[in-house]
Amino acid sequence: MNQSNAFRIPDTQQKRIVIIGGGFAGITLAKKFAGKDVQVVLLDRHNYHTFQPLLYQVATAGLEPDSIAGPLRKLLENHKNIFFRMATVTNINNSNNKIKSNVGELSYDYLIIAAGSKTNFFGQQEKFEKAFPLKQIPQALDFRSHILQNFEEAVLSSDENDIERLMNIVIVGGGPTGVELAGALGELKKHVLPNDYPDLDFQKLNIYLVEGMDRLLGGMSEFADVKAQKYLKKFDVNVKLKTMVKSFDGENVEFDNGEKIPTTTLLWGAGVMGNIIEGLAEESVKNSRYKVDKYNLIEGTENIYAVGDIALMETEDFPKGHPMLAPVAMQQADLLAKNILASLKGKKQKAFKYLDKGSMATVGRNKAVVDLPKNLHFGGFMAWFIWMFVHLISIVGFRNKIVILSNWVWNYFTYDRGTRLIIRPFIPKINKQKKT
Amino acid sequence: MNQSNAFRIPDTQQKRIVIIGGGFAGITLAKKFAGKDVQVVLLDRHNYHTFQPLLYQVATAGLEPDSIAGPLRKLLENHKNIFFRMATVTNINNSNNKIKSNVGELSYDYLIIAAGSKTNFFGQQEKFEKAFPLKQIPQALDFRSHILQNFEEAVLSSDENDIERLMNIVIVGGGPTGVELAGALGELKKHVLPNDYPDLDFQKLNIYLVEGMDRLLGGMSEFADVKAQKYLKKFDVNVKLKTMVKSFDGENVEFDNGEKIPTTTLLWGAGVMGNIIEGLAEESVKNSRYKVDKYNLIEGTENIYAVGDIALMETEDFPKGHPMLAPVAMQQADLLAKNILASLKGKKQKAFKYLDKGSMATVGRNKAVVDLPKNLHFGGFMAWFIWMFVHLISIVGFRNKIVILSNWVWNYFTYDRGTRLIIRPFIPKINKQKKT
Repeated sequence: MNQSNAFRIPDTQQKRIVIIGGGFAGITLAKKFAGKDVQVVLLDRHNYHTFQPLLYQVATAGLEPDSIAGPLRKLLENHKNIFFRMATVTNINNSNNKIKSNVGELSYDYLIIAAGSKTNFFGQQEKFEKAFPLKQIPQALDFRSHILQNFEEAVLSSDENDIERLMNIVIVGGGPTGVELAGALGELKKHVLPNDYPDLDFQKLNIYLVEGMDRLLGGMSEFADVKAQKYLKKFDVNVKLKTMVKSFDGENVEFDNGEKIPTTTLLWGAGVMGNIIEGLAEESVKNSRYKVDKYNLIEGTENIYAVGDIALMETEDFPKGHPMLAPVAMQQADLLAKNILASLKGKKQKAFKYLDKGSMATVGRNKAVVDLPKNLHFGGFMAWFIWMFVHLISIVGFRNKIVILSNWVWNYFTYDRGTRLIIRPFIPKINKQKKT
Repeated sequence: MNQSNAFRIPDTQQKRIVIIGGGFAGITLAKKFAGKDVQVVLLDRHNYHTFQPLLYQVATAGLEPDSIAGPLRKLLENHKNIFFRMATVTNINNSNNKIKSNVGELSYDYLIIAAGSKTNFFGQQEKFEKAFPLKQIPQALDFRSHILQNFEEAVLSSDENDIERLMNIVIVGGGPTGVELAGALGELKKHVLPNDYPDLDFQKLNIYLVEGMDRLLGGMSEFADVKAQKYLKKFDVNVKLKTMVKSFDGENVEFDNGEKIPTTTLLWGAGVMGNIIEGLAEESVKNSRYKVDKYNLIEGTENIYAVGDIALMETEDFPKGHPMLAPVAMQQADLLAKNILASLKGKKQKAFKYLDKGSMATVGRNKAVVDLPKNLHFGGFMAWFIWMFVHLISIVGFRNKIVILSNWVWNYFTYDRGTRLIIRPFIPKINKQKKT
């Protein structure tokens, strides 16, 4: 095998499989290849796996980052054929089977792109550069510091307009991220913040959830939409349907109907797009995702695969591609590992078929909605309990399960949040000019 | 009472006591004044109290920041006469009884300066601007990310000199911070890191503990010094006594004896100085601390007090001032609160007398040293157990006690560390120039 050695990977007779990304797909793949007769190199720009479904709880001070992150080296420990390297891949060269990264080049026999997705501003990045995305742990910490700093600043202000602007929160996008975040903020408003800030009137904290379509949770049932709206109302969240944001300058948000809301806090949960890497032919990319066949092979390549959010697999059941969800990513990764191992032994590969086990979203304390296959839907306390159970068993690592469970039990019974630390520098946003 | 209103503190008939700093002294004072007939305003640049004795465990991935921090609003909840405001005080005006801050002015009847201490580079800041201080939570997180990033970079390097430079760690200062950090790093080297980085040879990770005096733990007994040196040796720490650092450029550290060690990691634990605030007469400051009488009143003032690290109280027992330790701060704060409340009622005040209950330091797994009054000293497992017990009962908040205890139990039995996340951007330090 021909290799450059910036990565210090030993040269063996084994085929080298390079996996880009340590998300749900990446770690499923690596674990499947553990102990097999292949050499695996897992690359990620972070040294940890992020359990994205609970990011919103880090953003709302319910959990610390370590509870929802698994150090990748720990996850892959004791597997001698698996190598983790912290690197950001910048280019793929299909003709000589090499990737380029911020730390050097690496050759591969098989390449699996599992780089996931990032926030999609639909080409309007500049207009929304002051909005908060929520796809990574540092972003969740930024959001948490931001809202807590705003309350500290509001306490110091006597200007009613400033106070309103500091307290209002606008969330764009009525998918699971938006709904779960709005619910968690509603819970904070009702149970936690008034104790912390007796000088503030939390009637002035308005939480807006803005969605362009005429319903919430577009990927779920109508039942889920109706229930979620009902639950959000209980937590005092303003749901605005059929409304699009037009602009946000860090002080005001404007909607397409002309309405303006003064706020410094706009969370963007309106869409995601694949983390496309430079280098492959343009024809292989559609809607910021790699076009793959039923074996997750990227069109026009022979040894490059894409799985999970970044893969666009159009089938009869899913003519616009599979949904960008963790179960899809894990099922594709599982099958792809089996298929590659089978083909190395000259055996036949299987085509992918998604097994939908249902979907769910939680809306604050005691409330959630669950869709099961065959049109089974339910909500309320039982759905919330199942939501917690499924997330607990899904998160990687025994330690994380314990830490999260004990945090949830604590938060539930004390109506408290443990992690209200502002860890970035405090720079007053509005009062700055006036007071110095 | 005459007041400016940038802080939105209600105007009452009560005397206003402004406390600068939410450390051990600040929260002791605030709690003592809770429910009394005074108005208390506590100011801090952070929204949390830091339990500094365990900072080194955050720096070495043993604890997450939330375990050693207490949100100040939570600590002071339900006390209507106590107001917390997040602000950095920039000036004290003794003539009109006002302080200036980054968010505005505030008047006081009594002012208590409990601003603590910061890292002291003894006038050589520029020479050591690439060194890591360890006085605040963000600094501990920076150090943690830095050393983990170095190992990730070392894995990618084939240059033996680079690897040595990335792995070596130099700690300056043989006080409790230096000794405890060196012990914790020794434990990481022995039990945790080799599993995470099977590609690295941890014989190349040299930990140096450098001290100018001829002994360690200068504030403790000779017994403690001898034991600490013995324990550190077991954890493979190089102790260099009678050695001073001359310079550090981010790539090499040079000692006064001419010796050079290649390293990107210099932790500065060699000294602290008071966080002096602008405005009071120069005569009231000596060695970066406010000169106070036995009632903690600052010399030349009538209603301004200093307590804890920032107060220099010279007595017969302590001709050079009291040691900069948490117990001193808490005892002074406790008495000062009583004295102010007594004087408001026209009663007599008491002079301060420090009650030394002993001191202790831990040196990695199962090892610690304890000095008790009356020349009682002991070390080993029992000392380590007592060290844990005392720190657990001292930390604020029931939740923190539980979280820390469970982390310690987990770490002890699994030889693991839960919190190995690199949360700041990864910029290769050495390889950057060469590889792109």
